[in-house]
Formats: sequence, C-alpha cells, structure tokens
Amino acid sequence: QGILERLDAGEIVIGDGGFVFALEKRGYVKAGPWTPEATVEHPEAVRQLHREFLRAGSNVLQTFTFYASEDKLENRGNYVAEKISCQKVNEAACDIAREVANEGDALVAGGVSQTPSYLSCKDKAEVKAAFRKQLDVFMKKNVDFLIAEYFEHVEEAVWAVEVLKESGKPVAATMCIGPEGDMHGVPPGQCAVQLVKAGASIVGVNCHFDPDTSLETVKLMKEGLQAAKLKAHLMSQPLAFHTPDCGKQGFIDLPEFPFGLEPRIVTRWDIQKYARKAYDLGIRYIGGCCGFEPYHVRAIAEELGPERGFLPEASGKHGSWGDSLSMHTKPWVRARARKDYWENLKPASGRPYCPSMSKPDGWGVTKGARELMQQKEATSEQQLKELFQKRKF
Amino acid sequence: QGILERLDAGEIVIGDGGFVFALEKRGYVKAGPWTPEATVEHPEAVRQLHREFLRAGSNVLQTFTFYASEDKLENRGNYVAEKISCQKVNEAACDIAREVANEGDALVAGGVSQTPSYLSCKDKAEVKAAFRKQLDVFMKKNVDFLIAEYFEHVEEAVWAVEVLKESGKPVAATMCIGPEGDMHGVPPGQCAVQLVKAGASIVGVNCHFDPDTSLETVKLMKEGLQAAKLKAHLMSQPLAFHTPDCGKQGFIDLPEFPFGLEPRIVTRWDIQKYARKAYDLGIRYIGGCCGFEPYHVRAIAEELGPERGFLPEASGKHGSWGDSLSMHTKPWVRARARKDYWENLKPASGRPYCPSMSKPDGWGVTKGARELMQQKEATSEQQLKELFQKRKF
Amino acid sequence: QGILERLDAGEIVIGDGGFVFALEKRGYVKAGPWTPEATVEHPEAVRQLHREFLRAGSNVLQTFTFYASEDKLENRGNYVAEKISCQKVNEAACDIAREVANEGDALVAGGVSQTPSYLSCKDKAEVKAAFRKQLDVFMKKNVDFLIAEYFEHVEEAVWAVEVLKESGKPVAATMCIGPEGDMHGVPPGQCAVQLVKAGASIVGVNCHFDPDTSLETVKLMKEGLQAAKLKAHLMSQPLAFHTPDCGKQGFIDLPEFPFGLEPRIVTRWDIQKYARKAYDLGIRYIGGCCGFEPYHVRAIAEELGPERGFLPEASGKHGSWGDSLSMHTKPWVRARARKDYWENLKPASGRPYCPSMSKPDGWGVTKGARELMQQKEATSEQQLKELFQKRKF
Amino acid sequence: QGILERLDAGEIVIGDGGFVFALEKRGYVKAGPWTPEATVEHPEAVRQLHREFLRAGSNVLQTFTFYASEDKLENRGNYVAEKISCQKVNEAACDIAREVANEGDALVAGGVSQTPSYLSCKDKAEVKAAFRKQLDVFMKKNVDFLIAEYFEHVEEAVWAVEVLKESGKPVAATMCIGPEGDMHGVPPGQCAVQLVKAGASIVGVNCHFDPDTSLETVKLMKEGLQAAKLKAHLMSQPLAFHTPDCGKQGFIDLPEFPFGLEPRIVTRWDIQKYARKAYDLGIRYIGGCCGFEPYHVRAIAEELGPERGFLPEASGKHGSWGDSLSMHTKPWVRARARKDYWENLKPASGRPYCPSMSKPDGWGVTKGARELMQQKEATSEQQLKELFQKRKF
Repeated sequence: QGILERLDAGEIVIGDGGFVFALEKRGYVKAGPWTPEATVEHPEAVRQLHREFLRAGSNVLQTFTFYASEDKLENRGNYVAEKISCQKVNEAACDIAREVANEGDALVAGGVSQTPSYLSCKDKAEVKAAFRKQLDVFMKKNVDFLIAEYFEHVEEAVWAVEVLKESGKPVAATMCIGPEGDMHGVPPGQCAVQLVKAGASIVGVNCHFDPDTSLETVKLMKEGLQAAKLKAHLMSQPLAFHTPDCGKQGFIDLPEFPFGLEPRIVTRWDIQKYARKAYDLGIRYIGGCCGFEPYHVRAIAEELGPERGFLPEASGKHGSWGDSLSMHTKPWVRARARKDYWENLKPASGRPYCPSMSKPDGWGVTKGARELMQQKEATSEQQLKELFQKRKF
Repeated sequence: QGILERLDAGEIVIGDGGFVFALEKRGYVKAGPWTPEATVEHPEAVRQLHREFLRAGSNVLQTFTFYASEDKLENRGNYVAEKISCQKVNEAACDIAREVANEGDALVAGGVSQTPSYLSCKDKAEVKAAFRKQLDVFMKKNVDFLIAEYFEHVEEAVWAVEVLKESGKPVAATMCIGPEGDMHGVPPGQCAVQLVKAGASIVGVNCHFDPDTSLETVKLMKEGLQAAKLKAHLMSQPLAFHTPDCGKQGFIDLPEFPFGLEPRIVTRWDIQKYARKAYDLGIRYIGGCCGFEPYHVRAIAEELGPERGFLPEASGKHGSWGDSLSMHTKPWVRARARKDYWENLKPASGRPYCPSMSKPDGWGVTKGARELMQQKEATSEQQLKELFQKRKF
Repeated sequence: QGILERLDAGEIVIGDGGFVFALEKRGYVKAGPWTPEATVEHPEAVRQLHREFLRAGSNVLQTFTFYASEDKLENRGNYVAEKISCQKVNEAACDIAREVANEGDALVAGGVSQTPSYLSCKDKAEVKAAFRKQLDVFMKKNVDFLIAEYFEHVEEAVWAVEVLKESGKPVAATMCIGPEGDMHGVPPGQCAVQLVKAGASIVGVNCHFDPDTSLETVKLMKEGLQAAKLKAHLMSQPLAFHTPDCGKQGFIDLPEFPFGLEPRIVTRWDIQKYARKAYDLGIRYIGGCCGFEPYHVRAIAEELGPERGFLPEASGKHGSWGDSLSMHTKPWVRARARKDYWENLKPASGRPYCPSMSKPDGWGVTKGARELMQQKEATSEQQLKELFQKRKF
Repeated sequence: QGILERLDAGEIVIGDGGFVFALEKRGYVKAGPWTPEATVEHPEAVRQLHREFLRAGSNVLQTFTFYASEDKLENRGNYVAEKISCQKVNEAACDIAREVANEGDALVAGGVSQTPSYLSCKDKAEVKAAFRKQLDVFMKKNVDFLIAEYFEHVEEAVWAVEVLKESGKPVAATMCIGPEGDMHGVPPGQCAVQLVKAGASIVGVNCHFDPDTSLETVKLMKEGLQAAKLKAHLMSQPLAFHTPDCGKQGFIDLPEFPFGLEPRIVTRWDIQKYARKAYDLGIRYIGGCCGFEPYHVRAIAEELGPERGFLPEASGKHGSWGDSLSMHTKPWVRARARKDYWENLKPASGRPYCPSMSKPDGWGVTKGARELMQQKEATSEQQLKELFQKRKF
C-alpha cells in the first residue's frame, strides 16, 4: 500500500531518523559539507543504519540523498575522497533503501533538499533543473513517493514540489522552520498553504527545532490550512535535541552546533511524549531528523503501540517504560522499572560548570558575525546582513 | 605484533568503545540483562560496530562477550529470543572480531567479566570453571590476548586473571572501580598489585566512572605499583558520560542510569582532553567503555595523532578541531572552525528544569532501597545491606 | 517641587524599594499577611529603612501602608500582636516617611493597594469607602502625592484612582501585571488607557515580575496610550528577583515564593542594566518593589548618574562598577575592579542539585490546587477555579 | 551570666550575623576596604542592625570592630570620608553594642581580626601592639568577653589570643579556614590545638566557607583537640552563601566575590539544617558571618527552639516552617504552609544562562593572577606566588 492509502486509511506512518548526524558519529559523513557520498563509499554503513531504523519501526526509508544535488556535491567536492558523480550517489542511495525496505514493510521515499543554487540567486529554471536531475534517478529507481525536505525558504520548496509533482507520485514537503516562519518571514500557515497549492499531499516540518517547537509550528500550519479550507496530511520530523533557546534559524545558531550538542540529546521518554503530542495534534506521519537514533524511532513505535496494535521488531530488545530493569542485579536499579519513574525524571547533566541555555550567535546576536568581521571577511554587520538577504553565501 | 610488543616498544594502543550501550541504542541488546546474544542473532550489526571502531582508530577489537558466561546467559535466559548456547555466542563473537580485525591493523582480545556465580557466593572452583569455559573458546579461536574486565571485587578479578594466565597469552585486567576502591574496600593501588601478582601484564579501570575519575583511579593504581616496585602497563576505558556526582558504585547508582544519561554524554572535545591527560599520566592503552561511540574513539586517535604520526581512516570524514566547518554556508558557523572555540565551549543542556547534579540512590543514599523495602522485598535496610555484603543477589 | 513638576521638567525620579520583603528579613513583617503594623510597633525599623533608601538615592518615600486598608488589617488581625487600629498604622506611616523625607530631597507618597473587599465581591461603594478611609489619613498628614499600586484587576485600580483623584493631588497608578494583562485578561495597553482616563498622571507596573518582564509590560502600556493618543508619565517598580519562568500571576505562583527566592535575587549590575533599559524606554519614574534593597536603588542612581549629574550619598560607600576592589588585599580580586568584568559575569548558584527554572503551580499547573483538594478544602478543581473567578478567597 | 558559664552549663549560645556585608547593602560600608567607620559616621544604622540580630535571637553582640586595627584603618584611610581615629571607631562600636545588649539578654564581645601588619611581615611585637591598642578600648568599655576572628594564619591568631588573654576575660578564637587548613598548610586540628594552648576557651571557624564546609572544618578541629586531650567549646560562624566550588582561600577566590554572590545566598531552611547539624556535632556557639541577615539568625533560634525552650522575639513575625502562609489569599500558596514542602524544595535560580558552579580564580587557577601580570604589576606567576608566600601584599 502506498503512503497516501495508508494515511487516508488513518494509519500512523513512522518515519526514520537523521542520517547525516548518525553517520557523522559513525565516521562516514563530514560535518560542514554534510554530503552523502557514503552511499557509494561505504554502502554497508548506510545499509546497516537503514536496517536499524526498519527494525525500530520505520515505515518509510528515505533515500540518503540529503544535499545530493549536483551543485552541492560539486560545491563541496574537495571533501569527497574520490570524485563521485551525483548520479552514482543518488542511484546507490535508492538501491540500498530498496534493498532494506524489501526486508520488511516499508516504503522508499526519494528526497530532495535546498540547493546552493537557490541561495546564490540562480533563477527558477536553474534550481528546478537541479531537482529534476535527482528526480530522474528516483523515477528510474522507482521510489514509492517523494519528499521535499529541509527548506528554509518556501519559494524554493514550492519549486521543488512543482518539479516532484511532474512525476505523478505522491509528494510530501517539510520545511526546517519554526513558529516565526521562513527566512523571508512567511508564517508557517502560509507556507503550508503554498505547498499544498503547489501539489504536496503531506506537509509539515523537519530539522532545526526540538520536538515541542516543531509541533507548535505544525499546529500553525494546520490552522493555516483550515483557514484556507485546504486538506493535507501532517508530518513532523524534528531534531532529537532540546533547543528552547534557539532563534529563528534554529539549532544552527546555537553555539553548540554541531560538535557540542550532546547535553541536549533527548531521551527515549522525551520522544514518547513527543509521539503522543504529535498524535493528539492529528499528525499521522511521525518521524525524526538530526539526532534521532534508532532507539528514538522505536520510542515513537512503542508509545503508539496501543493505537497501532503491534510493536516493532527492536522492541524484542526493549521493555516498555524500562521494565527490562526488573532483571537488574541491584535492587535499587530494579526499583526504576516503572513508568512514573522515567516519566518524571529530570535528568542531570553532570556538568555543573555549564549553563542550561545558550545565546544563539546568528544574525540576532551576531557574535559570530562580529568575529568574522574582525577577520576582515566583511567590513560591517550591515554588509553581512545585506549579503545574507541577497543570499550571497 | 602482539599487544605486549607494541606496548613495550612505547606505542600507543587505542581500545574500542562500549558495545552493550551502542547496540542497545541500535536495537540489538536489552538493557537490564545486557547480554551479547546479538553475535548469533544479528552478526551484521556487531560486525558493523567493530568496523566503525576499526575505522575510528581502534587497535584492539574486543570480542563481544560481555556477560557471556554460561551462568549469566542462563540467568537471563528468558530474555533471549531463542535459546542460544553460551558456546555459540562466544564463538560467533570471536569470528566476527577476527573477520573485521583482518580488514585492518588490529588485535583481537577475548574478554571475560564478573559472574553471577561469584555474587551468589559460589566457591572459587565454580567461578573459575565459568571463566575456563569462555577461555576454551578463546583458545580454540586463537584470540591475540585476553582481558578480564568489569570486576567490582578484586578477589574475583584475581581468579579470572589466574584462569586466563593458564593460556600462556598476555592478560590485561581492568576493574570498574573508582578512587574509593573495590566493593570490599580494597584501594585501587592494592587492587593493581594483586592483579599484577596474579599475572596481569596490563592493569587499569573500565566503565562505571567518567574519564576524569577513572584517570584519578589509574593514578592511584600506578602509585600502588610503584610503591610495591612492580611493573605493568596502564590501561583506561572509562564511560563517555560525565559522572562527577556518583558514589562508590559509579553510574549504576545515578538516577539517570541507564535510560536518562543523554545529558551526560561527553563531547569529542572532552575525549581529546581525556586522551591527552591519560597520555601524560603514562597510560598507553587508551580506550573507552559504555557510551563511547566511534567518534569518541576517533577523538583519542586525533588527539594523539602527533605522537603516533598518523590519523585513522575515519578522520577522512572529520576536520581537526572543527575545521570542516570552514565550508559551512553560514559565516557565523564558519567562525566556529577553530580549536579555542571548541576547547572553551561550556555546552548548554537546553534543559532549564533539570539540575546539573543528582544524588546517587544506591546504598549510600538508599532511596531505591527504601522503596524496595516498602515493596516488602526486604524488611529492613540493615537486612538489605547484609544481603549485599553476602552478595546474595 | 512636586512630582509632576519634576517629571514634566524631564527629571528622573527614583523610587524606593520593597518594604514588606526587606522588613520580613529584618524581623518586623509577617509573610502571609504582609501587613504594616510595624509603623506602630517598631517605628525605628521603618524609619531606618526609609533612611537607607533616601541615602541610596530615592526621591520618593512611600508611606509604609501596603495592605493597610481596614478590611485587610482586620482580616489578618489575629497576626497583629496587639490590636492596632488601621488609622494609627496609616498615620504613623505618614509621620515616619515625612520625618525622613525632611532629612533630604524627597517627596512623600501615600499608597493604597488592592483590598480583600474587592476580592470578596463587595460592591464599588464599599471598596471605595476602604480607600477613602486611607485617603483621609493621607490628606490629614498632607502627603505630596498618591500612588495606587499592586492591583491585579484594573477595575479595582480604576476605583482607587477615582477615589485618590478626589484629593486634588497627583495620582500615580501601577498594576502588578505582566504582558498578558490583568486577571480578567485586560491587556496592559488597555489597563493604562483606563487608568489615565480615570485620572492617573503616571502609570506603570509594580511587583510580581522581574525587571525585564516588567519593562516589556510598560512598553505595551506605552503603546496602548500612544494608540489612544493619551499622555502620561511612565513608572516601573519591578521585583528584584529573576522570574523568567513565571506565569500570568507572577512570582506568587513560583514554588519558591516566598521563602526560597534567594537564588533569584538580582545583582546590582542587573539593576544597572534595568535602569538603563527603563530610561531608554522613556520611563522616568524608576524604582523597585519586593526584593529591592537599598543597594539596588543605589544602582539605579549610579547608572543614571551621568544623566542626573550627581550621585546619591550612599555612593560615598561604593565604587562605580566595582572600582573599590582596587584596594583589596588579593591581586586577583583587585583584577575584578572593572566594568566589563561585572557586566559579563554569569554568576553561579553554588547549587548543582537545583534547576534553573521552575514550573509555576498556580491555576495553570494546579499542583498546589490539587494537593489542597486532597486536603478536602475544596472538592474539585473546577470548584476552585469558579471560586477564584468569583474572587471568593 | 558570662559566656563560659552559659556554655559550661550546656546552654546553646547564638551568635550574630555579618556586619560588613549587611551594612554594605544598606549603604554604610565600602566593599574592598570593608572598614567599620560607620560606628562613628552612622551609629543609628549600626544600632539598628544590632537590634535586629538581638530580636532574631542573638545572645552575643559583637562590637563592629572588624578590620578596625589602626594599621588597617590608616591603610584604607583614603576611603574614610573624614579622618576618624581608630580609637573613636572602636569606642563607638563598644558603646552601641552595649546599649543594644542592655535591651535584652545578650553579651557584648570585643573582636579583633587579622592585620595588614602581619601580612606585611611586621614582627610579633608590632602585630601584638596593634591588638593591644584595640584591647585597651575593650577593657575601658568593659566588654563581656573577647573574640579573635577571621585569621587565615594560625600564627597570627595565636598572637591575638595571647594578647587578649592578658585581659583575664574569656577568649574565643575562630579562623577563616576550610578543611585544608590555614594559608601555611597547618591543618584545622592543629590550629585548634595551638589556639587552645594559647589560651582560647572557645575555638572554631568563621567566614570564607559555606555552612557545610565550615562544619566539616570544625569537626576536624574537634578531632584534633580530642587527639591532644584538650578541652574547649566549639563555635561556628560560616557564610550564608553556598560555596561548594571554592578552593583553599574560600569565597574570596570565587569570581562572584563580592558583587555577584546573590544566587548563592542560603535560605532560612538551609540555615535550619545547618543549626541542627552544628548542634549534633556538639557545637554550642552557633552563629554566622558574611551574608547572614537577621532572618538567618532567627532560623538558628527556631530550629533549636525545642532544645532551648523558647523562641526569639522576631518569631512573633514568623511562622514555624512557613505556617504563616496558611493565611495567604491564594490556596496554592496556602498549600506551601508545611515543613516537608520547604525542606525538600530545590530552589531554581531563574538564571538559565548561568552555571551552577564556578572555577575559583585564586592561586589555584590563577586567571586573575595572569591578567594581573599582563597588567605588568608582576612579571611572573612564580614571583606572585613568592610574594604571596612572603605575605608581601
């Protein structure tokens, strides 16, 4: 059954987690460029991660094609050990995802994301051409549906949806925005409306913000669609990091991004709360993005187990709400084998010299920007802002 | 070259990370029993993790035989999907480790750890028999050397070393203790002396405490050996969690163990500091235990790159001290591509409602114990303590 | 010169600090009733506190008549050591304030605050009669101007202003509200408009919220007045506690209120930032409420010293931005004698087991309410809420 | 009855709180020099603070003669508004303390503290002469007993005790040290022995460390005396700040000293725990130092009310364990009128951007020292340390 049949029938569809962050920690992706050449260089690593998400309960395996547009790969080409063609990367991603999907009950989704071309002000035709190049691969490999994800500008997301719709396959579209809206200030409700009008059947958010903030954004999208009398399925794939302190551009601007985010990693119990809240809000495509490891996806599947009537395979190695601890050797650890214990725990950081919140250093605060200026890469903050508005980097 | 040749020649040997925690998150190990039946059930997952550690720089691949003694596996047998024999688990572990070790320059170490038999007061002969059973497999599979690790009682660790020495292979021994010493109060220095006298060529600590506390403990071991005019190589494989607040029994007693430890996870920069400090202390076998992911091991290899003269394969996907960020799209993120930034960062938890330290709830504090008593499993705290001293659970 | 002459001339007027909190710590006011019988019982203590504020730079000494309406004093009568008449308390308050004001350049302001009569649904006439009784004393004692302060409901505040205006003296009116508005949901801008229309020449906020939140609220009042084309002077007298985590009813609902607020106490440097921000926002009557000690008031006077052209007497015992430390015996303490040190300090709490934020337990969260119900004082939360809406306690 | 009669009879004697910190906040003492010229300049302020401590339960009023030795006053002379003689300051201090003591049941104690003469290496005769000058005033004014307090070096403390003993009056001696001992490394037990041998009848600690750390130090003193078979009464007057993170020299070295200590201020409940713990340890002279306000002293008197059989006057304005809140207008605040609520509260700081612990910047860490060197006041850290060891500043 296809994605829309499932959602139309009221099924809960569980997404997968974040590939670039998980594979960075495993040693296959470089932070900074964040490109997916591992599909060609180390298919076994990509395959294993897909398998873990499948075992954890994912119903959709996204091809690992994040930032795999030709312009991006070329842009960051000096980071790729041997020159690997865009087409090869995308094809390998499709093959691996399909191979693993066939081991279980999962769909394969081909994904495109924002492009350097758009940010460097290339025109619509050029940007669309980049998406079309990836789409050609997805069609050849016959993915089940398509996702346009990680867009900071709704304009570019709409272009992506328009291209993907040419395929005739169902299209989902998620933006990496918070309640304040996209980088040009378009509010979430309006973003959703534009995406649905462009042809998306499923809309929502991914990345950049923590589960709570992301659900707040999807709620605004839902209200926008209702006001416009439009219908679409809702989707959320947030970070697995707590980010109550981030600004408009999300966790990118937190000083801890990307190498000091550990203390912000959410627990499985945080994810159970997220899954329940997402469900109550009417979201039926529930997954994750950066920071989501297989056990986080399993937590979604376990929380919604009663509604779905089954647990994922990986729950064979996990007790509901910690009950596997009842076999622990120490009695006071056995005493933790209960739901209210984990539900109410306020976990300590073990870091008494660290604060609980940070000041973002993006354009709002501009600490980084100021430092940059001192390094003579730009002569004034105003100039930097103008560059930013003109999307010149 | 064998482990002792390398260490005797002054080489730095990098260990691997924690299998039970990493594979629990990937969906293959159950928290509570913590047994390694995955070697038989899902060899591909174990193999992939070995590979990632190898890529990250590990010179030793430990067989995934933690808690794989027959008594433990039987004890927790109801958790194993299908009844899998102790021998099969141990053999598969050896085969997988050897297969991956052959892909690079790594040794295979067979590992034994503390047994339920000892805790339930079985006599020396019985406990030794359990170790001998595992050793038989290690000999048949011809591992390169042996590690007795994760012992809370030096008495049992000595028995393990005695058995392992029967093989004629080099033996390393690490205890999961802190500066206060073992569970019977034997101080670290004395533990080290006993282990070396029993035949261990390498001694140190693993698990239970964070890097700083573990190094403090190894320092005490070193001083104990010096006072006794004994010689041995030093080894440390600590947690990748910050645990400044834990008591004598380590992170087990922290209320966050094992499902709420996320905010305590150390960063790669914390590990670089650990590696440097361990090196300066004279430790030459430097690895990790629970919480250590491949990128933590890579951080050891990168910090000690200058001393070793080379970087591990996975550094091809990592810039030293964050320099891969110099290719990031946002200028204020590019400004983070420098050592002093990451070295001085005090990462926020994003959890303003959580404290930075917890009270351990083991016998020191006995909160869990008291709850347990209320559950009528024991009638007095005194009784619980006596049970504990008699090792009756 | 009167209060309006000063403000009309563009002068900065510095208010005083919080009497009930300061005198509670000194042993003269009881937390809970918070009544000012100390004016009769221990005039020397009240006099000394006035003197300290005067020395610190206060231009206005408010009579210590908080909660000194007859209904309140009677209501809490069992707490007053010997029965002291409402009139005596109010008269003594006026005498003491005038005595100290004459020692320097300060005005005396007679103050009224919200009444139990209003909360228990007495009608307008009855509530106004209570205010009139206090006003009679203020007229007899010839205070310089009048302040209606600490009102949660704008309706009652308007009644108070109407009564005070009968005197012909200038009237200031401050509400203890945050950006969400009064307890019936009237937004700050609208509250300001109603107060000015009722006759207040000066409007603003006092108590219940920290400096930042209070300034946000005054900003909304200012915008409301501008939109209504009304003119009034602005005034702020916030808490000297950090309360980023409080709900609509302010610090009352924080679990730390009133006996665990110590870690939230603001520093003198926080107050300098507040004073500057208030000034920049156009506020010219700048003071404090609960938690403000004399040194906090001095910090206002020091920050605005350049604008005013002089420092208060108590600055003779204080160096600007810590410069008195240049005479400290330890060189590393001397190194702290500079502005940027104190401006940037993120002071630690010394409390690693405590969080940085709390959940309010008022009607939003209702933890306290639920406990109360369990104590059978009310049979349902709904009932409690209805009681609250009907203002029956 | 004299101090020794009371203590010999097993009575609990309650000390007073910290004058320099309290009067600094009230505007009468300058941080840095910390000298007590307020006794002459503003006797009413000093008198009022004495009165508040008396009301709160203090049985001893210490003359406000901290740092009132001639060398200190001269040294800091430029800070004193008009030149005030050392003798006048000391005499006024005695008169004020006696006047207030006569209002209740309190003793007057004349106090001396460490001198600049000692730190600048003046010889024993010179240092003793400074103490004798103050003692002359105390004898003329006939104080009830004498306290040598705030000594970092036991050698100087012994000299002070020797001088004070010449008077024939009882002598108490407290050092501002922690468990690590005095600045020359003499451990607390040995300090206590030397002080008792020199003639002190009461020994203990004051200032520099929080209640917990101070009690730990007194415990070491007690053990030292027991080992030496010496008898003396024990005394503790700690800070009212949490300082778990300070080094050997106490809170002076914390970056928050002295103008950012607010988040560390202890609650009244912390003090009740301190009083109980001190009592259980056998300490019978229990008071406070810097940070102790009248309500903290009252908390000692309330905690030990059952043992003493009475409450202080100021308890007329305070309910035991918060019970005055039972008259609060909001039901959820009324629900806080109970002991277990306040006993278990972990108060939040309201400061999510601040850590819970700081790194001391004294000689241990030497951040301040290094900055100083950059300012060319010293050319090397070694040189600074040598200066320090030679007590050259």
